[in-house]
Amino acid sequence: MVIHRMGEGTVVFPNRPKIIAGAAIAGKKEGEGPLGKEFDAVIQDDLFGEETWEKAESRFYYTAAKTCLTKAGVEEDQVDALLGGDLLNQIMSASMAARELRIPFLGLYGACSTMAESLCVGAMLVDGGYLRNALCAVSSHFCSAERQYRFPLEYGNQRTPTAQWTVTGAGASFLTLDEKAPAICRCTHATIGRIQDMGVIDANNMGAAMAPAAADTLARHLRDTGRSPEDYDLIITGDLGRVGHDILLELMKERRLPLNPDHYLDCGLAVFAPGQDTHCGGSGCGCSAVTLNSLILHRFQERTIRRVLFMATGALLSTTTSQQGATIPGIAHAIVLEADA
Amino acid sequence: MVIHRMGEGTVVFPNRPKIIAGAAIAGKKEGEGPLGKEFDAVIQDDLFGEETWEKAESRFYYTAAKTCLTKAGVEEDQVDALLGGDLLNQIMSASMAARELRIPFLGLYGACSTMAESLCVGAMLVDGGYLRNALCAVSSHFCSAERQYRFPLEYGNQRTPTAQWTVTGAGASFLTLDEKAPAICRCTHATIGRIQDMGVIDANNMGAAMAPAAADTLARHLRDTGRSPEDYDLIITGDLGRVGHDILLELMKERRLPLNPDHYLDCGLAVFAPGQDTHCGGSGCGCSAVTLNSLILHRFQERTIRRVLFMATGALLSTTTSQQGATIPGIAHAIVLEADA
Repeated sequence: MVIHRMGEGTVVFPNRPKIIAGAAIAGKKEGEGPLGKEFDAVIQDDLFGEETWEKAESRFYYTAAKTCLTKAGVEEDQVDALLGGDLLNQIMSASMAARELRIPFLGLYGACSTMAESLCVGAMLVDGGYLRNALCAVSSHFCSAERQYRFPLEYGNQRTPTAQWTVTGAGASFLTLDEKAPAICRCTHATIGRIQDMGVIDANNMGAAMAPAAADTLARHLRDTGRSPEDYDLIITGDLGRVGHDILLELMKERRLPLNPDHYLDCGLAVFAPGQDTHCGGSGCGCSAVTLNSLILHRFQERTIRRVLFMATGALLSTTTSQQGATIPGIAHAIVLEADA
Repeated sequence: MVIHRMGEGTVVFPNRPKIIAGAAIAGKKEGEGPLGKEFDAVIQDDLFGEETWEKAESRFYYTAAKTCLTKAGVEEDQVDALLGGDLLNQIMSASMAARELRIPFLGLYGACSTMAESLCVGAMLVDGGYLRNALCAVSSHFCSAERQYRFPLEYGNQRTPTAQWTVTGAGASFLTLDEKAPAICRCTHATIGRIQDMGVIDANNMGAAMAPAAADTLARHLRDTGRSPEDYDLIITGDLGRVGHDILLELMKERRLPLNPDHYLDCGLAVFAPGQDTHCGGSGCGCSAVTLNSLILHRFQERTIRRVLFMATGALLSTTTSQQGATIPGIAHAIVLEADA
C-alpha cells in the first residue's frame, strides 16, 4: 500500500494521467475578448437556440463535452465517468447535460473552483485505475448567474466597481492513461483546498473573499513540493479578478513566497479586455474552464510552457447565506500540469 | 498499472477501506420513529439553537462530523479530506460546516444520493492511497428543504399522497486504511450511477423519478460482479419511499433479477413509522445517511449482517427546472459494505 499524499495534503500522481483533449465553447462577449480566436466555438446567440438561460447554459455544457470527446476520438459509451458541475442551484446545467450524454456522473460543487476540483478528483481516480478515463466539464452563463445570484437582467441593475462578469461558456478536458493517445500535458500533483473565510460579506467582491483560499492552497502546495513560484512557467488562478489578483500578490509577499506578475495569470483578467466594461474581470466556473481548455492547452501544444499550476477558486456563498448576513467562504483547488517528457 | 474497474463500471477495492466509525444526528420526529434508539443524538429543537433553518441544518452536519471523528478517535487536523454535500442551493450546510472543521473539502452534489456518492468517491481515494482517510458526511432538514423546494411552512400547504417527508438529520462515516483501527465494515465494490429519466415531472413523486436509476445501477452491479440479489443480506435504497420501493421491485422483476422483499430495505420506509403521517416515507440526503450510520453499522457490529449493497438515489431537479417544465433526472450510486473477514 503506497500513500501518494505528502506534507499538508499535496497528492502525487505516479502514473501522470494525460489530458489528451480539451474544448472551450464561449459566448459572444467572450468571443470578442482577447481569447476569442482560441475557442473551439463562439456562440453568437446567448440562448443557444433554447427557451431559457438555464437550458442554454446546459447546451454550452453539452457542446463542450461532446466537442472534447470528438477531439479525443472517444464515444460516450467508452467514457467511464463525467465529473463536474456548474453554479446553478442543484447543478442543473451539468445534470441535464449528463442525462443526454448517458455517462456515469459524479456531480461536484465547488462554485467557480469546480474545473480544478473535477480535474483533481478525476486525475486521482484515473491515476489509481478506478476509471480508465474521465471527462471533466463545467459551465457558467452570465444571464442565468445574474438571475439566480443577483437580479434579473431586465431590472437594469447597476454593477458595483468590484463586481465581476460571469463568463458565458463551458470547458471540458479528457483525462486518460491510454498509452496510444498523445498527451497535451500530464497531471502530476494536486492540492485539495481548505475553506478560508476572512469575513467578506459583499457578494459583489468575490475576489477578496477567494484570495485567502488561493494563498492557503498555494503556500501548502509549495511547502509540500519544496518548490518556489519560479518553478512554474505559469501560476494560474481561476477568477480572482483585479481586486483578488492584487490581494493574492500581497498575501504571497507576506508569506515570503512572492509571485512574479509576469508568470502569474488570472483567468478573470485574461478572458476580457479592459475596454469590455466588465469592471474587475471575468468570473464563474466557465471562466477558468474556457481559459484552461483553450489558451493554456494551446501553449502546451506550442511548447511555450512546460509546467503550470492551475488553481481555480470558488466563493461558496448562496443568496440565502447572503440574505442571512453570513460571510463568504472561499476555497481553491490546485493541479499541476506538465508537458509530456 | 492495474485497472480496478470491470464490466459496465463496477469498481473493486483491492485494499478494502474500512469504515471505523459512523454518526447519526437526527431531529425530533425522526427520534420518535422506529430508529430513534439507534441515533447518536436526537435534537428536540428543530432550530438546534440557531436563528435559521439553514444554519440549523449546518449545525446538524457539523455535529454529525464531529461526533464521527470523536468516535473514530481522530482530530480534525488528522483528516485528509471531507467529502459531502446537502440539498440546499450551493450546498451551504456542508460548506459552512467545512469552514468550521477546517478539513480540506471536496463538495459533492448528488441530491439524495450524496451519502453514497461521497462513500464511493471517498473509498476510491482512500483505497488508492490519495487520502489516508476521509470523512464522508451529508445532511438535510425538513424545514429548509420545504422552504427551498416547495413552500415556506407558514403557508400550511397541503401535501400530496405521493409526497415524502425530508429527514431532519445528518450522517457521517469515517473511512481509513489505518491497520490499527478496528473495522465496523469494509468497502469492497462501488458502482457509479448513470442518469435515468423516464419523464416524471411531478416534484412530489420523486420515488417514481428515482426508481429507474436504482434499477439501472443495481442491474449493472449484479451483472459486473456475477452476483444475484441473494448474495446480499440486505439491498438498501436511500429514499425511494413507498411508491418508488414498489416500482423498483417491479423493475427488477422485469429484469429477471427479482428482489426478496425480506432482504430489501428502503431507508425512507425504515426511518418513519406508518403512523407518523409522512405519506410515502422519508427522503433527503439525511434519510439514507442517518439510517446507514446508525441501524446498518449497528447490525454489522452485532454481526447480524455480513454483506450489504448501500445504494442511495437522487432526484436531480431544481425549482427552476420544475418551473420550466423539465422532467426529473434520477441517479443512484451504490457501494458494497462487508463485514471484516
